Amino acid sequence: MRGSKLIEITPLDQLPLLNQGDDLAGLIVKRARKMGAGIRNRDVLVVGQKAISKTEGRVVDIRHVKPSARALTIAKRTGKKPEFVELVLRDSQRVVRADKEALIVTTRTGATCLNGGVDKSNVKGDTKYALLPQDPDASARSLVKRVKLLTGKNVGVVVCDTRSRPFRRGQVEECIGVAGMSPLVDYRGQKDLFGYRLRFKNVALADELASAAELVMGQGRERAPAAIIRGLERVKFQNRASSKRLAISPSEDLFRGTL
Amino acid sequence: MRGSKLIEITPLDQLPLLNQGDDLAGLIVKRARKMGAGIRNRDVLVVGQKAISKTEGRVVDIRHVKPSARALTIAKRTGKKPEFVELVLRDSQRVVRADKEALIVTTRTGATCLNGGVDKSNVKGDTKYALLPQDPDASARSLVKRVKLLTGKNVGVVVCDTRSRPFRRGQVEECIGVAGMSPLVDYRGQKDLFGYRLRFKNVALADELASAAELVMGQGRERAPAAIIRGLERVKFQNRASSKRLAISPSEDLFRGTL
Repeated sequence: MRGSKLIEITPLDQLPLLNQGDDLAGLIVKRARKMGAGIRNRDVLVVGQKAISKTEGRVVDIRHVKPSARALTIAKRTGKKPEFVELVLRDSQRVVRADKEALIVTTRTGATCLNGGVDKSNVKGDTKYALLPQDPDASARSLVKRVKLLTGKNVGVVVCDTRSRPFRRGQVEECIGVAGMSPLVDYRGQKDLFGYRLRFKNVALADELASAAELVMGQGRERAPAAIIRGLERVKFQNRASSKRLAISPSEDLFRGTL
Repeated sequence: MRGSKLIEITPLDQLPLLNQGDDLAGLIVKRARKMGAGIRNRDVLVVGQKAISKTEGRVVDIRHVKPSARALTIAKRTGKKPEFVELVLRDSQRVVRADKEALIVTTRTGATCLNGGVDKSNVKGDTKYALLPQDPDASARSLVKRVKLLTGKNVGVVVCDTRSRPFRRGQVEECIGVAGMSPLVDYRGQKDLFGYRLRFKNVALADELASAAELVMGQGRERAPAAIIRGLERVKFQNRASSKRLAISPSEDLFRGTL
């Protein structure tokens, strides 16, 4: 296809299995070079949460976890392992549902999700679970910095994780951390095709980038924990960024009271 | 970038303003030819709801709408125009929230969204509003058929619309109609990197395709009501498809009771 406005999404596949302390940015840069021209200015790197959690040492063996009294109570209510519940609670600010069907919490960083994002897929060892990164925005910032150091290029980074959603079947990837770019593109106050002023449009671009990257990243066996998105015209690259802007407080949430 | 697994997303921009009766598939095929090789087998066309609503004549002048008694009541409660509320109610099966902050309904096709998807952005005329297509899956099927007729190629079609979401700030595009491909890719029962069996993973690929296309489609002024996504390896092309599979009933919804 010709057309200057097309975007390309390339999986960074065939990466080695990741462990604590690995230089994830270095591996991404190396793989990008091997595949072509390497990283460029204004590329957005989308990186899976699990890759970051593994390299940051956020993998926990539940045999070494001591459940609190609260974890024991919730474990009973949900039928889940007390040690697993303990891990979920440690990084939560609020439990929103806890019964036999689901454990849903709001994490410290404001995301409301099943099991607080703690899970064991693509983690080695029957008793090992991956936690979310301690501070996914900080993880994203450190990738932006390290890519700059290694390549001289300015990129945006989106950390993504799999999310179930209210009202919808199936999961999509959403942004849980961001750096180097604004996660939203705000059209409010701008005019449409016919001069009508847009009142609500505020696109969660970082969530869309996360979902777009998933189309090539697959589910682990492809060893593509990251993807490069190139050619984006609407991303606003900037130093200050926070994924917390994508979380909405219950009082602002228009879907309050609907579920 | 080399790498056989990359995908390309190309906006079909500079399309004429659309009106009832226009051959949308024909315009898309023509524009794709002008931009390069034209449509290919296994392309996915993502098409904005408004383009379909306009060509299907789903634009209504509210001066010709007579509000029902129920619409008048809800108009009072929400502070919205009675005629607008009437349009929203006509295509709804359930009102889930109606007050000064928001009117949220479940549409006939099972989507739960603000104003039932009725809106006036990018619609010409101060009193004119676009409704959702009567049957977005049928709209998608007719595009698949017409593209096949014009080009001989087998494509998937995703009809997308802008959606606000519970718990999250900002909107993303989601799938409201699909044809030629499965909207979900189910990994349940498959094994991860280390042989652990995946229990929940069922990716809403059609929603991810909708969000990915939005990255190039913009907000109307670009006149890019559609995009071509090429190079997808995980799409399951098939004749039988329905976007209804993406809607979840309240009893199955794990987020029930959390908002």
